[in-house]
Amino acid sequence: MNGKNIVSSKYVETDAVCFEAVNPATGKILAGDFRKASFSSANAALAAAEIAFQSYRLINKDLKSAFLRCIADQIYAISDKLIARASEESGLPVMRLQGELGRTTGQLRLFADMVDEGSWVDAIIDTAIPERQPLPKSDIRRMLVPLGPVVVFGASNFPLAFSVAGGDTVSALAAGCPVIVKAHAAHLGTSALVGEAIVNAIHQCGIPKGVFSLLYDDGYDIGSYLVQHPKTKAVTFTGSFNGGMALVKLAGQRSQPIPVFAEMGSINPVILLPEAIQTKPEELAKKCAVSITMGAGQFCTNPGLLIAVQSAELDVFTKALAKAISETPSATMLTAGIHANYQRLSTEILAEHGLTLLAESAIIEEKFQHQSIARVVTVSAKQFLKTEKLQQEIFGPYSLLVIAEHTTQIEEIIEFLDGQLTITLMTADKELATYPDLLNKISDKAGRIILNGMPTGVEVCSAMQHGGPYPATNDSRFTSVGTQAIYRFARPVAWQDWEHSLLPDALKDGNPLGINRLVNQKWTQE
Amino acid sequence: MNGKNIVSSKYVETDAVCFEAVNPATGKILAGDFRKASFSSANAALAAAEIAFQSYRLINKDLKSAFLRCIADQIYAISDKLIARASEESGLPVMRLQGELGRTTGQLRLFADMVDEGSWVDAIIDTAIPERQPLPKSDIRRMLVPLGPVVVFGASNFPLAFSVAGGDTVSALAAGCPVIVKAHAAHLGTSALVGEAIVNAIHQCGIPKGVFSLLYDDGYDIGSYLVQHPKTKAVTFTGSFNGGMALVKLAGQRSQPIPVFAEMGSINPVILLPEAIQTKPEELAKKCAVSITMGAGQFCTNPGLLIAVQSAELDVFTKALAKAISETPSATMLTAGIHANYQRLSTEILAEHGLTLLAESAIIEEKFQHQSIARVVTVSAKQFLKTEKLQQEIFGPYSLLVIAEHTTQIEEIIEFLDGQLTITLMTADKELATYPDLLNKISDKAGRIILNGMPTGVEVCSAMQHGGPYPATNDSRFTSVGTQAIYRFARPVAWQDWEHSLLPDALKDGNPLGINRLVNQKWTQE
Repeated sequence: MNGKNIVSSKYVETDAVCFEAVNPATGKILAGDFRKASFSSANAALAAAEIAFQSYRLINKDLKSAFLRCIADQIYAISDKLIARASEESGLPVMRLQGELGRTTGQLRLFADMVDEGSWVDAIIDTAIPERQPLPKSDIRRMLVPLGPVVVFGASNFPLAFSVAGGDTVSALAAGCPVIVKAHAAHLGTSALVGEAIVNAIHQCGIPKGVFSLLYDDGYDIGSYLVQHPKTKAVTFTGSFNGGMALVKLAGQRSQPIPVFAEMGSINPVILLPEAIQTKPEELAKKCAVSITMGAGQFCTNPGLLIAVQSAELDVFTKALAKAISETPSATMLTAGIHANYQRLSTEILAEHGLTLLAESAIIEEKFQHQSIARVVTVSAKQFLKTEKLQQEIFGPYSLLVIAEHTTQIEEIIEFLDGQLTITLMTADKELATYPDLLNKISDKAGRIILNGMPTGVEVCSAMQHGGPYPATNDSRFTSVGTQAIYRFARPVAWQDWEHSLLPDALKDGNPLGINRLVNQKWTQE
Repeated sequence: MNGKNIVSSKYVETDAVCFEAVNPATGKILAGDFRKASFSSANAALAAAEIAFQSYRLINKDLKSAFLRCIADQIYAISDKLIARASEESGLPVMRLQGELGRTTGQLRLFADMVDEGSWVDAIIDTAIPERQPLPKSDIRRMLVPLGPVVVFGASNFPLAFSVAGGDTVSALAAGCPVIVKAHAAHLGTSALVGEAIVNAIHQCGIPKGVFSLLYDDGYDIGSYLVQHPKTKAVTFTGSFNGGMALVKLAGQRSQPIPVFAEMGSINPVILLPEAIQTKPEELAKKCAVSITMGAGQFCTNPGLLIAVQSAELDVFTKALAKAISETPSATMLTAGIHANYQRLSTEILAEHGLTLLAESAIIEEKFQHQSIARVVTVSAKQFLKTEKLQQEIFGPYSLLVIAEHTTQIEEIIEFLDGQLTITLMTADKELATYPDLLNKISDKAGRIILNGMPTGVEVCSAMQHGGPYPATNDSRFTSVGTQAIYRFARPVAWQDWEHSLLPDALKDGNPLGINRLVNQKWTQE
């Protein structure tokens, strides 16, 4: 396990201060001496990225897609070792991590496909009209080019899919941007293994070495330094509200503004309309319990808020939910800090006026540390609407069931809600059309709206939107999951009256790349 | 001339503090008592915008495009009155304002066409795969929805095309966002007339009244208040670096982050390669002089920097340029403040080491005030590369000619440059291919790169990019001119497993709107 910082695809020998990785379930120290990155390593990483950018932004798209696929291959080749280490460091079960590894390599290949297809550059062509009066019209052609070096913060809860070679890294690399990853201290060995895989891919494909660096830190120094560094052109982060806003504020102090993308989680309200409850109260309760407790509730899309109208069937639902929650075994949380926070917040919240503990997990694994105790709490809609604090995210297997007196209160609750990553409607077919306002209101508050599904499980595809109005993110115009995440890292350039042979292929007459383009106001692939 | 603030399409009777419009050429007070907007008017405007947004964001696209065309018609109907007033207030000649009026109405119609065509919503559809292993894939469909109320700051130098019904307003309205315009104090009467035209269009088309408000202020109070208002969802600004960054910083202090789009001008380098100079030195010099002095140089795309290599032909060029500049009559500048700044900066700069005044306008119109004196200054490349200050924009008919010893210095100069709205290459056909690095370097520093044209004259079309790396703008990923400006004001929403009949038309099977969509990774209009 090589825990040295990687700067410009090479291990740094000079950073000397070490720290260690810990198994959160056992407290055991794991293999590997991880080096706290020095500011000089951070400077070197950014200087190399800036130089590499000048060639990487121009590389052939075939080579770029081959590079992304090669990273996937390199990761796949060390699956067993990687999953074993990730499970030890994160407390996440092997099966979950197998799925996440598939997601990570699949995501790399999906972006490679997009790079190959090529239309993502949004080519737009307006040809000249020399005879136009009073002034001739120039030939103007526009496409996207990459921004420059991107700083990626690994996320604690996806040690593979949102970390060193995760969604942020792959979308930046696909756009043509070098990446400097600040490894998350919760999965250092996993980061090191994936970092090595990327370095192998860089060597194998002949990619400029400055395209990748990986830095470790057990504190905030290096992360803050990277965000404020003049050579950094964008920053991505997935994590807590406080962590995300700290980075947004830090970036706000820069003399040169840059985009920061902070996905800060949300409580992902699930609205249980009356007929949905009436039809299958027990089945619905089980589904909710599974979604609340999956992965110890450590998902940005965890359903932290259930909203329902009181009824006899709701009593059946709540009983079934209470039973399912109490029967859910405890699980190891990602870190001691996340566990301590969860225990504190999910206990403190019970002191709020009008809250009742509906159920908590009764099966505690005593062999292991940092066990999450799933909790579901209830409150009346009236009280909820008076208590802004109840909208805070409690990261873990926690949910608040808000009980309304009648359906009109549901609309009031939605209006009261902060911005969300997702809002879910559980309903029966016939019932839906009777709530047109409700449908519009939820699309105004969330990035993704789900019908009769659960918010957990974020598909990596082109149509995914993983983002949402503040405070779910600081910039609702972008997604951090799916192929459209590439648009965070690109800017348009227009070529005016340019010599045809010197135009990028995407902008040439005859469409040599066969991509989708807007030519003189018509969409065409010709 | 009704100078009362317009809140929610109604004149406000209660704002009592008055100020006046001035003719910058004569110092004469013009008709109209303009009212300083109170904070209570600003609050009312945003409250009405927030409410109107809930219906405006859902209106039929035919009605939305009809509304934009109706604004164009209403403006066209008052052309003569509007141009007369705009000329009196801004000092700009009638012919220039006629062109600008055409551009303004043309821009409204172009956005109406885009709304009609409908593909701008970027619809992406990934259909379900229920049989997928290990987990079924949901049906996910994504499109853009509007952000909410947008605050638009009118720009001094385009009293029609970048003011009350200018590019920012039309792109926000086209996206489905209500607009609150902070009128520029340099063209109050023009603002009032256009405001009335928009109100007429709102009434005529039955658009929610809160979609439009227009507020006046002779200071910064209302602008600052609007930027920090919690109901504001985006801000646009075109103007000086200091003004733009002040708004960016103000917005950075908000608890809820919002996008601010500040187009802050640049010096728009024009690189004169040797063969271009050799071929037609005198013709080129005349073209440069026209572009430098057009509209008293008050364009964001004014060529404030010329770069050439010393040669005998360059001497011919500089002589011709000096002659053309000295023969350019002075012109009235937009405001006393802009004039004073220009005079001060274009004089102070001469104190910098190594600068020589090449020529200045010798024809001063003594009848009028605030006359700009065109100035061209020269400096050696060596000195330029040592003096960061020479990159400052001097807003007015000013340009700095940098004389390099050899062509390799040109690349050094480009690397030294700050981000720009435009960079222009003047060259002869055969010469171009010998500078591949140069071509790549200029695309890395600018939003628009021009071959053998002049940067002034920004075409309003789909392929236009009017923006660029900092400090040209604070966010190079967006344009403020052309149809793509709409993307500043929209965010994606994904519908997951949604009931088909309740999906927006843009996302329905069978593509009822006939728009360009990405369906299961294939671009199609079917």
